[in-house]
Amino acid sequence: MSSRHSNLTSSWHPTSFRVRYQETDQMGVVYHANYLNWFEIGRTEMLRELGFTYRELEHSGVFLPVTSADLQYKSPARYDDLVVVFARLTTFAAVRVVFEYEIRRLSQEVSGNPEELSGNLEQTMPLDPYNNPGELLVTGSTSHVWLNKNWKPTRLDRALPELFQGITGALREEGGAL
Amino acid sequence: MSSRHSNLTSSWHPTSFRVRYQETDQMGVVYHANYLNWFEIGRTEMLRELGFTYRELEHSGVFLPVTSADLQYKSPARYDDLVVVFARLTTFAAVRVVFEYEIRRLSQEVSGNPEELSGNLEQTMPLDPYNNPGELLVTGSTSHVWLNKNWKPTRLDRALPELFQGITGALREEGGAL
Amino acid sequence: MSSRHSNLTSSWHPTSFRVRYQETDQMGVVYHANYLNWFEIGRTEMLRELGFTYRELEHSGVFLPVTSADLQYKSPARYDDLVVVFARLTTFAAVRVVFEYEIRRLSQEVSGNPEELSGNLEQTMPLDPYNNPGELLVTGSTSHVWLNKNWKPTRLDRALPELFQGITGALREEGGAL
Amino acid sequence: MSSRHSNLTSSWHPTSFRVRYQETDQMGVVYHANYLNWFEIGRTEMLRELGFTYRELEHSGVFLPVTSADLQYKSPARYDDLVVVFARLTTFAAVRVVFEYEIRRLSQEVSGNPEELSGNLEQTMPLDPYNNPGELLVTGSTSHVWLNKNWKPTRLDRALPELFQGITGALREEGGAL
Repeated sequence: MSSRHSNLTSSWHPTSFRVRYQETDQMGVVYHANYLNWFEIGRTEMLRELGFTYRELEHSGVFLPVTSADLQYKSPARYDDLVVVFARLTTFAAVRVVFEYEIRRLSQEVSGNPEELSGNLEQTMPLDPYNNPGELLVTGSTSHVWLNKNWKPTRLDRALPELFQGITGALREEGGAL
Repeated sequence: MSSRHSNLTSSWHPTSFRVRYQETDQMGVVYHANYLNWFEIGRTEMLRELGFTYRELEHSGVFLPVTSADLQYKSPARYDDLVVVFARLTTFAAVRVVFEYEIRRLSQEVSGNPEELSGNLEQTMPLDPYNNPGELLVTGSTSHVWLNKNWKPTRLDRALPELFQGITGALREEGGAL
Repeated sequence: MSSRHSNLTSSWHPTSFRVRYQETDQMGVVYHANYLNWFEIGRTEMLRELGFTYRELEHSGVFLPVTSADLQYKSPARYDDLVVVFARLTTFAAVRVVFEYEIRRLSQEVSGNPEELSGNLEQTMPLDPYNNPGELLVTGSTSHVWLNKNWKPTRLDRALPELFQGITGALREEGGAL
Repeated sequence: MSSRHSNLTSSWHPTSFRVRYQETDQMGVVYHANYLNWFEIGRTEMLRELGFTYRELEHSGVFLPVTSADLQYKSPARYDDLVVVFARLTTFAAVRVVFEYEIRRLSQEVSGNPEELSGNLEQTMPLDPYNNPGELLVTGSTSHVWLNKNWKPTRLDRALPELFQGITGALREEGGAL
């Protein structure tokens, strides 16, 4: 496969946190737009686990705005729920990136710190290899393009070759294909 | 056509307002999740123009949560822009509702109060019958179902027959089909 | 008085709008942090009425971040309420600015477009010269300093002398003292 | 001291997390209203550490809305910063509660999961008994009253005596006085 892109679907990367009061609305559930903020947290933490931060990307003059998004709301999250965002890459190319997401609620009986749980989900709940753990709440995806400081499309393999190789390499190490 | 549903696509209903500082992010544009808030304003004001408010709907024990949403980000809105949300119904049925949206930026030379402009867009800019006025920024759609107080699906024509007849009647008056 | 500052308290400047669903929380009222967003709208629109926009201020390399804020929550605003933010300047100096605010709810019987009402509040409700119209919900104030592009304090009368003279002049025309 | 109130100032309770992209604005820093959301997280987590959750409080028909808030902005937080909210109670009475807060940024060299750090701050940075660790960004306080389901003031020692005794007991165990 060309080093310029990877069509391998990555593993799911989990990030967990508690729902904030400010995120609820008067229907007593999380306001529907807030799940896009959680998708953003999911992809940010996934990049961090792969060894990179979105902040350093921006400092290097490369931006990754969203070009399209879709969400499917199956069941709502509620205040103080312990939720997990599962994020994975389905396309990581020099010009285009696509993430998929699942937002799930961990069982009420699970206590403890969200960040500790992120690394220990297998011990928290038996991992079904076909399903992520937890009650499925929301699914969706976001597509992105790489832009430079002047808001013009750019190719990541040319703008930041080390970063590009690093992420595609990390994705290959994951194995990728499910 | 049965009085239980209307598949007529309604007219576009415009609502305009200024972008708030709080809605921007460090990329210097409106944070991508905020456009879902603007879709919500668009459908709320459209219902108000048809003679109904979402608030009275909720007070009557009927809710209209979002079941799915999709957005296509073509160009970003910026702080203090005068933007218009165009909303229209593509499905208004007893069990399901689908809205479509366009978010456009009015020309920089347009001054004045956003609400006054909403009713006077034809005078502000020549209306192209095939296109809404203004620079196209974001498109999208949201799907909804009617729920009752117990979060169970309900049929609007049975739960609030007057409201249902009122809205389908108003839609029929609009003409509907484009 | 020196042209470098004005300690005259300005008139109250009203801006009205409807409460958005996204601004509510599960207590069925506006989430308490959102009133700071409304204070920001109030001072922005006040500056616009005086002939200036905060956007052009930033484009000219001058920024007005908040250094302190205080809020007193007397009664909550609710979804779809027609609210008015009254803003006034109590200090407008070369180095420091202080705004005061009242957020009030207009009577339920008042219909119409928020922006039209902003200019016609006297006709909407009898103006009590000692009180602004509407039910008092929240009061507060914000203090600000002028900063330049490098985040260093700056004097507005030197950074943008025309703007400074313009605003102090407009404030003097208002009469100021209550 | 009467069991109905405690004027002891509690210890500082830390909660850490990363700044979200959605929390920034076009000045490249955290939008000033978002610190109130962080105060809310700080007091929520403090109550959880004392053995109670705000969610169960609400389920028991008792609410704790904010009656006033003040913030002093000394230095801004930025995207992806690891921040800590330090919260402490200065008044915990049957009718009224007052919290104080400090928001600090942990050193850039500190890596790791925010939640793990919350419990290990002494190892992360030497604890100065007179100062919390980290660079001071924002200070403030919030005052609250206890309300029942009908939005009427209520006394916590009568509405939920076990909870009231539990929290005052836990505060006494902390020692309280600084």
